[in-house]
Amino acid sequence: MNFPDWLTYIQQRTETALHAVLPAATLAPVRLHEAMRYAVLGGGKRIRALLVHGTGGFLTHAGPEQLDHAACAVELTHAYSLIHDDLPCMDDDKLRRGKPTVHVEYDEATALLAGDALQTLAFQVLAEHPVSATASGQLETIQLLAQAAGSHGMAGGQASDIASAGCELTREELEFMHVRKTGALIRAAVLIGARAGEGTNDVRRQRLDLYAKRIGLLYQVVDDILDATSDTATLGKTAGKDASHNKPTYVSLLGLPEARRFAEDLLAEAHDALTHLGERASRLHELADFIAHRTS
Amino acid sequence: MNFPDWLTYIQQRTETALHAVLPAATLAPVRLHEAMRYAVLGGGKRIRALLVHGTGGFLTHAGPEQLDHAACAVELTHAYSLIHDDLPCMDDDKLRRGKPTVHVEYDEATALLAGDALQTLAFQVLAEHPVSATASGQLETIQLLAQAAGSHGMAGGQASDIASAGCELTREELEFMHVRKTGALIRAAVLIGARAGEGTNDVRRQRLDLYAKRIGLLYQVVDDILDATSDTATLGKTAGKDASHNKPTYVSLLGLPEARRFAEDLLAEAHDALTHLGERASRLHELADFIAHRTS
Repeated sequence: MNFPDWLTYIQQRTETALHAVLPAATLAPVRLHEAMRYAVLGGGKRIRALLVHGTGGFLTHAGPEQLDHAACAVELTHAYSLIHDDLPCMDDDKLRRGKPTVHVEYDEATALLAGDALQTLAFQVLAEHPVSATASGQLETIQLLAQAAGSHGMAGGQASDIASAGCELTREELEFMHVRKTGALIRAAVLIGARAGEGTNDVRRQRLDLYAKRIGLLYQVVDDILDATSDTATLGKTAGKDASHNKPTYVSLLGLPEARRFAEDLLAEAHDALTHLGERASRLHELADFIAHRTS
Repeated sequence: MNFPDWLTYIQQRTETALHAVLPAATLAPVRLHEAMRYAVLGGGKRIRALLVHGTGGFLTHAGPEQLDHAACAVELTHAYSLIHDDLPCMDDDKLRRGKPTVHVEYDEATALLAGDALQTLAFQVLAEHPVSATASGQLETIQLLAQAAGSHGMAGGQASDIASAGCELTREELEFMHVRKTGALIRAAVLIGARAGEGTNDVRRQRLDLYAKRIGLLYQVVDDILDATSDTATLGKTAGKDASHNKPTYVSLLGLPEARRFAEDLLAEAHDALTHLGERASRLHELADFIAHRTS
């Protein structure tokens, strides 16, 4: 299967799997369940799901259904973080994936609770489905998700992001924030993929972790570049908001040409990390390119 | 050990255990970690921790450290729900456990993220510590917590609660809401306690579940009574807010005398459920009394 076909295939699998794990919109409380489905279904590139499948499908003996559940857990966590990040007390955003944000379409209380319940559901999916061949492997996937999502990961990164508005950060401080805010969950997608099924050996795992860290940071550097150079219609979310919120980014810190060079360096390092994994890592190689050259 | 001494002993153990699992306030992002500790430490009756220990300590072979971690997970989940429930878009409350609420003491964004990160931490604690004698038992505790916290449990109950303001509910609708909003996590405390260590047999588990359901609802009925009859200083949170928010409660539905009779019935049923468990269940018997007769 060529890369674009594989992309579509995994995106469709993920959509179907998410549809199945989300509570039906007919169940009470209906408005909450509608909002959860609205936030998760029918949008997004599913980069994290692609990383789970791209890692687990070629480097472990995990079956596609196992990877679907692992992918759902990571995508649900991502969706919850977007809902909360868009709330008025955070980034106060009106547009996401080309649609009104959840608190605009519903209301703030429903958006808050939908995010809360999606985070719970992510852990529930990993705890209830045999993502790994062993119960202890399954526990490890939950540990990886929790470490990535918590105060030393994504939630911590968002706290730093909020605190950074109007501040000048050093390059180290900016990296601290970006690695957590976006990088941690992208890294977790790879590590959870590697822990699915029968897992993989330590050497491969270390190489995958190096790859995962590079593409996690790469994703956010490209985000900074797109926010500064693209338009709202293309992005499906408000463009130029980093500058308007006076937020430090790689573009504001390094300037556009240097930020682009940094992204190319990260891409090369990600590719390097995969060298010894051979043909099995070809999807990950292509996914790094996809993340680097995306336009939305 | 008599009941009041045991209460203090478990409350102190829980405080120490929570102190240990929470990130140090010196770690970045400092403001987030401070807020998480502010919300969790130094307050609350720790009813849920008492239920974990009261069940697990006498009906399974769980060690006290195993139960501490199980208790932490349930208390962290409870603390997260209080932070989010107090936010302006929810109940907009200024006082909790006799202190300013988290968004008043810090800010809304920090309160939102502190709640998010505490929910994550609850699952992380269960995934990283051997609460059960087996990995599959440990996964079951995570399933129990997720089922209790999610859209069919606590988050769903809060959504119903928000939607109910200004509405007249039937007794069935009120029970639907209360069983989820408060009952689900209290029930989970008992069931997680019963699943700790080597667990317990199915017959005992069913009796404990019946007990847990009764005290879960009892807790909320007493909450409704206290909100209508007590004062803010005694409660440590705003009294009379159900009436001022025009929220349906057992008091508004049944009147005070009938609500009190209902609480006595639930207490008697909770006691009945414990009958065949003998001396091992004496702490749970006492805890039901404690929940029924609490004044805050």
